[in-house]
Amino acid sequence: MQVLPLLEPEAAVAPCCPPLTERPFSAEEAEVAARMFKALGDPVRLRLFSAVASHEGGEACVCDISDVGVSQPTVSHHLKKLKDAGLLTSERRGTWVYYRVEPSVLAAMGQLLSTAAGP
Amino acid sequence: MQVLPLLEPEAAVAPCCPPLTERPFSAEEAEVAARMFKALGDPVRLRLFSAVASHEGGEACVCDISDVGVSQPTVSHHLKKLKDAGLLTSERRGTWVYYRVEPSVLAAMGQLLSTAAGP
Repeated sequence: MQVLPLLEPEAAVAPCCPPLTERPFSAEEAEVAARMFKALGDPVRLRLFSAVASHEGGEACVCDISDVGVSQPTVSHHLKKLKDAGLLTSERRGTWVYYRVEPSVLAAMGQLLSTAAGP
Repeated sequence: MQVLPLLEPEAAVAPCCPPLTERPFSAEEAEVAARMFKALGDPVRLRLFSAVASHEGGEACVCDISDVGVSQPTVSHHLKKLKDAGLLTSERRGTWVYYRVEPSVLAAMGQLLSTAAGP
């Protein structure tokens, strides 16, 4: 089986793009940024993301998240998607995979949405 | 012809939700916020949004936007979607509809992505 190379989350997103209000995005910038927005563009995924982001210690496993009304495999599927988009990192410890928010991504997205100040 | 009532952009989004890192989102909060993220989760739409957001005077019509590589009807279609999501407002003046970024939405989305500081 051939494994396609995955972009490293940090490399893919950290210093992505200028604020959306600064100048028109290039096609490349839009690809990177749209991928992050799309990952959060699903209500279940967004709830899971906020569940991880707000969990004690800044990390959570599937075992910690059971109250969003979807099955554990569905939770795992969505967490995987968030990871693929570079929004979460993961680490296996024993039985469980623990997810953690990638802080540089939140910072990058926040910067996208900041309104350019000054000249 | 019956016209369906549209949500007022401001009412729909302005004080949507706490930062994603503060506590798990409720289903209702996630619905509202995911709608905004989803609207920006398409590369073409994101380019159009940044084209409007960064245009002189803070507004643009379809006539101003021609360099994203899609047809004018497609541009109009995407601008309509951004408007329906509450991200743009529009005003017809003569032949053209002018679009403008709804500043409260950028502020609301920026707040979602801010990392909660302190206790």
